[in-house]
Amino acid sequence: MNVSDTKGLPIGVFDSGVGGLTVLQAIHDEMPHENLVYLGDTARLPYGTKSPASISRYACQATAQLQQSNIKLLVVACNTASAVALDALREQMDPLPVIGVVEPGATAAVAARPAGEHLVLATEATVRLGAYRKALLDVDPGATVTELACELLVSLAEEGWNNGAIAESIVRRYLAELDTASRHPDSVILGCTHFPLLRDTFARVFDDDVSIVDSASTTAAAASHLLASLSLENDQLEFGALQLLATDGVTRFARVGGQFLGHDLSADDVTLVDL
Amino acid sequence: MNVSDTKGLPIGVFDSGVGGLTVLQAIHDEMPHENLVYLGDTARLPYGTKSPASISRYACQATAQLQQSNIKLLVVACNTASAVALDALREQMDPLPVIGVVEPGATAAVAARPAGEHLVLATEATVRLGAYRKALLDVDPGATVTELACELLVSLAEEGWNNGAIAESIVRRYLAELDTASRHPDSVILGCTHFPLLRDTFARVFDDDVSIVDSASTTAAAASHLLASLSLENDQLEFGALQLLATDGVTRFARVGGQFLGHDLSADDVTLVDL
Repeated sequence: MNVSDTKGLPIGVFDSGVGGLTVLQAIHDEMPHENLVYLGDTARLPYGTKSPASISRYACQATAQLQQSNIKLLVVACNTASAVALDALREQMDPLPVIGVVEPGATAAVAARPAGEHLVLATEATVRLGAYRKALLDVDPGATVTELACELLVSLAEEGWNNGAIAESIVRRYLAELDTASRHPDSVILGCTHFPLLRDTFARVFDDDVSIVDSASTTAAAASHLLASLSLENDQLEFGALQLLATDGVTRFARVGGQFLGHDLSADDVTLVDL
Repeated sequence: MNVSDTKGLPIGVFDSGVGGLTVLQAIHDEMPHENLVYLGDTARLPYGTKSPASISRYACQATAQLQQSNIKLLVVACNTASAVALDALREQMDPLPVIGVVEPGATAAVAARPAGEHLVLATEATVRLGAYRKALLDVDPGATVTELACELLVSLAEEGWNNGAIAESIVRRYLAELDTASRHPDSVILGCTHFPLLRDTFARVFDDDVSIVDSASTTAAAASHLLASLSLENDQLEFGALQLLATDGVTRFARVGGQFLGHDLSADDVTLVDL
């Protein structure tokens, strides 16, 4: 297949559930002409509390499913899978490119606040693996990094309770686990794809001059750059097609996913696949 | 095998994760001489948001694993699996007995409040299936039943934030979805094994004269009655042995599970099994 055939192929976006739809939406905003296929592994979510071996196996199976759609680029929209399985997925996709959400987020945070104090909010698994700490210090050895597991915010976003007193109390209670200095960082990195939905709450809780970095928009920008550098951008003029796949519960996927995508979905918009 | 051999065999207790440990503890309190084997399907939790077909398949696989330990009775400590898969599990265990958590809870609530107004707090899947409604009306056609999905309380209990202002606000916010009458029921049925940990919070939120029915103690009592009626009680005098199995993340299982069991666990106390 030559490059011009490849250009029209879809970008594959993979997440453990609906959270990665924030990344999908950002990719569509950045590159509206690209065809997109999204796989949410809802049968096995959440990844954030699972072991690295299980997460890696699940991610490889999900990628194999997306490879059946002939994807030209894989975006791993799940922070946990990016932290655990990126090397395995790059091997599986080789020679086609793979982008995770951790590196773009870390790079954007360092660009915004060189030698800064970064606070990473993420799931237990992402924190346990120290993926953001490593990525931040790779880019900026002068950075200071604090990582905080905020598991409850995932359910909060899925319930749609993104704003208001309860969301604010929960964020403040997590922050109370930190020393005073870490509660006033230069940047807050939203290291879970669910967390961009809570952006307004974070803005109320943190200092006014904090940089809030979400991996959705930074990953979309990185994907756009990468496709351009490989001359793999779709050069069609019409809007790209979107296909949504889920491994379980298409009705719930549509209901909760609509909140993440910012418009209503019906169960008919989602195809059930078995991994 | 004759009855006297069977008496010493373990009771198998199955749940999607750590929540069923509240049931396990209640069974141990009720029948301290029984040998117990617990399987938490932590690789695939939560069941509460998955489809009935997946839940049923998972429950049958978990039961097959427990059958390798030669269990004499299966207790399905997961409300969602009890609601979805009880018939399939009874067929698989036949002629050995199976108890779920839904019927004992419903029977206890009706006994406490005949012709009463019952409020069932549960996961999305349990509510969607209407399992408690059906069980309550089977026992007491004069009962009034309201079912309310409170998904966020699962994560809250796993985080250990069972008491205090945040827990209370979340419960009150869920109740705000109900009409005024339903907020003042005669009985509140804790239709998820995580919820007994929030018992003090429920007691503060609901009227003083409400009956709070948890399926852990009611199921343990039902299991004890059943074994007695079949002459299958263990007649040894020493305390029974306890074996804990999990399908993923034994470290997290030990940390979170300790809260549910009421004493510290280490990862060495938990055996990893692959289903």
